[in-house]
Amino acid sequence: MNNETKTVTLDDIAVGDRYLSREFPLDTAQIKSFARDFDPQPFHLDEAAAAQSFFGGLAASGWHTAAMTMRLMVESVPIADGLIGAGVEISWPRPTRPGDVLHVESTIIAIAPSKSRPDRGIVTMQTDTFNQDGEQVQKLVSKLVVFRRGAG
Amino acid sequence: MNNETKTVTLDDIAVGDRYLSREFPLDTAQIKSFARDFDPQPFHLDEAAAAQSFFGGLAASGWHTAAMTMRLMVESVPIADGLIGAGVEISWPRPTRPGDVLHVESTIIAIAPSKSRPDRGIVTMQTDTFNQDGEQVQKLVSKLVVFRRGAG
Repeated sequence: MNNETKTVTLDDIAVGDRYLSREFPLDTAQIKSFARDFDPQPFHLDEAAAAQSFFGGLAASGWHTAAMTMRLMVESVPIADGLIGAGVEISWPRPTRPGDVLHVESTIIAIAPSKSRPDRGIVTMQTDTFNQDGEQVQKLVSKLVVFRRGAG
Repeated sequence: MNNETKTVTLDDIAVGDRYLSREFPLDTAQIKSFARDFDPQPFHLDEAAAAQSFFGGLAASGWHTAAMTMRLMVESVPIADGLIGAGVEISWPRPTRPGDVLHVESTIIAIAPSKSRPDRGIVTMQTDTFNQDGEQVQKLVSKLVVFRRGAG
């Protein structure tokens, strides 16, 4: 685990490097606020409707889980020129619930220097989001544009 | 294009069915507010820093584009038991900018009835997000859990 505040570039990272975030506590008000803005479906807004739904109780929007994950990635993955995503794959193996305390673990799984643009590369990072019971609520695989030292 | 308010189930949909959303206008305040909460990087928060970045100017977080897309999907894709995502793939071919007016076009590209659970299936939907110039700012492919009539 690497949790220092010094930033890194494409020249400094290696496959297998890992970054651990802080914990992020989630409450019902946050779940409903995000849902009102971006995912106004009954199972994200109303306990009674949620109890009768696929989720069997109030659940956060998957997009809220993704957004919280991004917040924790920004704080914990110290890439010098920022986290610039070209594309991602996400799955949600189980719901995020009110009262959950999330954290994320990010691992570099591939590094592909660009042939056409020698100042950068594409880094593949897997970021797993867990609740306080160690259950995975999201798997994210991101393709990031990462620059060499002095290029950004 | 199908834009009626009647809801549909797994029994009612077919590959090729399409759904068109309303338009969603985006301003600088919304971009910065989302970024403060979920993606606090300089190119989403500060015009001067953004001008010097990869993006060459203020850009919305990709997660904000995804969240706005979900809002427009919830309003325009009338699946009876809701939009329940098992997983997604996203790419962002160009940034979303202040002043953009977004809309989304969703197309059903595959339907796979579940063998183990006859009351449901997995529907693959592609949702393309465009700005006011017809430029694509996001491509989303979602795997949705969709129920048969009366099963939800």
